[in-house]
Amino acid sequence: MRLRQIGEDALLAKLISLLPADRRVVAGSGDDAAIVRGDSSGKLLVLKTDCVVSGIHFDSKASPQSIGWKAMMRPLSDFAAVSAVPEFALVTLIVNRDVEVSWVTGVYRGLNRAARKFNVTIVGGETSSISGPAAISVSVTGTVEKDRWVSRRGGRPGDRIYVTGRLGSSLRGRHLRFIPRIKESRWLTAHFRVHAMMDLSDGLGADLPRLAAASRVGFVINSAALPLSPGATAENAVSDGEDYELLFTIPPRDAKRLSVHWRKKFPETRLTDIGSLIPRTSTRGTKLKGGYIHFQ
Amino acid sequence: MRLRQIGEDALLAKLISLLPADRRVVAGSGDDAAIVRGDSSGKLLVLKTDCVVSGIHFDSKASPQSIGWKAMMRPLSDFAAVSAVPEFALVTLIVNRDVEVSWVTGVYRGLNRAARKFNVTIVGGETSSISGPAAISVSVTGTVEKDRWVSRRGGRPGDRIYVTGRLGSSLRGRHLRFIPRIKESRWLTAHFRVHAMMDLSDGLGADLPRLAAASRVGFVINSAALPLSPGATAENAVSDGEDYELLFTIPPRDAKRLSVHWRKKFPETRLTDIGSLIPRTSTRGTKLKGGYIHFQ
Repeated sequence: MRLRQIGEDALLAKLISLLPADRRVVAGSGDDAAIVRGDSSGKLLVLKTDCVVSGIHFDSKASPQSIGWKAMMRPLSDFAAVSAVPEFALVTLIVNRDVEVSWVTGVYRGLNRAARKFNVTIVGGETSSISGPAAISVSVTGTVEKDRWVSRRGGRPGDRIYVTGRLGSSLRGRHLRFIPRIKESRWLTAHFRVHAMMDLSDGLGADLPRLAAASRVGFVINSAALPLSPGATAENAVSDGEDYELLFTIPPRDAKRLSVHWRKKFPETRLTDIGSLIPRTSTRGTKLKGGYIHFQ
Repeated sequence: MRLRQIGEDALLAKLISLLPADRRVVAGSGDDAAIVRGDSSGKLLVLKTDCVVSGIHFDSKASPQSIGWKAMMRPLSDFAAVSAVPEFALVTLIVNRDVEVSWVTGVYRGLNRAARKFNVTIVGGETSSISGPAAISVSVTGTVEKDRWVSRRGGRPGDRIYVTGRLGSSLRGRHLRFIPRIKESRWLTAHFRVHAMMDLSDGLGADLPRLAAASRVGFVINSAALPLSPGATAENAVSDGEDYELLFTIPPRDAKRLSVHWRKKFPETRLTDIGSLIPRTSTRGTKLKGGYIHFQ
């Protein structure tokens, strides 16, 4: 069987099944970032790697700075997902030898500008040649307090489901200049009991079912409630992916307080209640695997 | 200017110059692995990323298990270089969608077998498609005691230069099945004052000049002393690369004690005194940049 026939989720599940368990691992494969017990200090170590590949995550018209920006911000968005603070990054550049040096330094400038935005230091890296498209892999380490990290697994029936920002504009270039919601995520976990959280990288229609499955619950959302980017349709918001917004759930009793305080703290960023988690149900024939979306 | 015209060392130097300094970074770009101050514990955090690319680091005839093995062992060899203990790994697989799933799971088995050999746990990873050759990027984190890490920068004139094992057999397949010298490196730093150390990845002829330059010294080695693999020539040992043996220097007064204890501790692994560090000299016209090799 070939990779195109199996799909990424199934492949990752297969690969994870090959890995032995380790008591030091708090959250691992299948979560947005790995969280491990390091030394005796009060914090956990957080590890994440991600990559961008030419022809897949960017095209040849993108500026090298924006490519570097995206390559760094993708793993940083996973730090937002688990509410961790990124600290150090390693960069692997895999590029054809006929590429201009100025393209590579442009990518590095973008990587570094993105890193500095979150006080992340690029501490090392490698370069390799390839007889094919360029690929940039970025690994980031950081920390999170033992009682503060969030996974996609803690959602409960009744929880309200929220998304930050607006959805559906990735294909119009936002995927090359987004800012991960680390500040927002850290504020949320400082003031609210966030039951489950992840970042929207593959689109609400793929990611919300993952959160629901990991939490062993169902969901119901209303397409009319989706916060659309200018010009985007509900279909864009559900399916395009690469929004890099936060998707999270909190107990319904905190909804009002969240709404009031969010507006004061982040007046320029929307926060939208898009629906709720429900008990897992056997009902099928819905728009999204594992839950409902009401298109209007 | 294109990448093929500038060379890897010059490119890395250029990229490093773009990066800001960070007080938390003990050793960074330009060393074998990054070493950073983490939390308050007595250990430093060690970070390393590396990759293997089809057509560059392995060919299509290599078994997927051996490719995974090499992809993991390359960064682990850098932990040997700085005398650190690896703990966690992240894996990024960049492969064409028409690749067989069994090839990918084979690579993963090789990655995991290599990781387990050194009690390293693969805690996460990503997959991406590519319309070109496969690439596997592995990032490893670990720790080293504050007073125990070694860089390539501490060599002093008069130091004896040693290499472990035998050199020159990488092209006959050893590069796909080598075992990083982590055990040997940890033993060395537990019992000896190792002034400078690195792993031999690009060949003695490229790596020794790097150690000498980083230590601001020269060197003189004797080709007759090189520990050759069966069938290898001195030229193979100097130029082929991918030996993944340790290259290190110690004060001359410790040479005898090292020789005696090494033979007892590692009776099956050669340890060879190949020459010495000397004051930096302005003499040129030698075989290797920054030093001498006497071919016999």
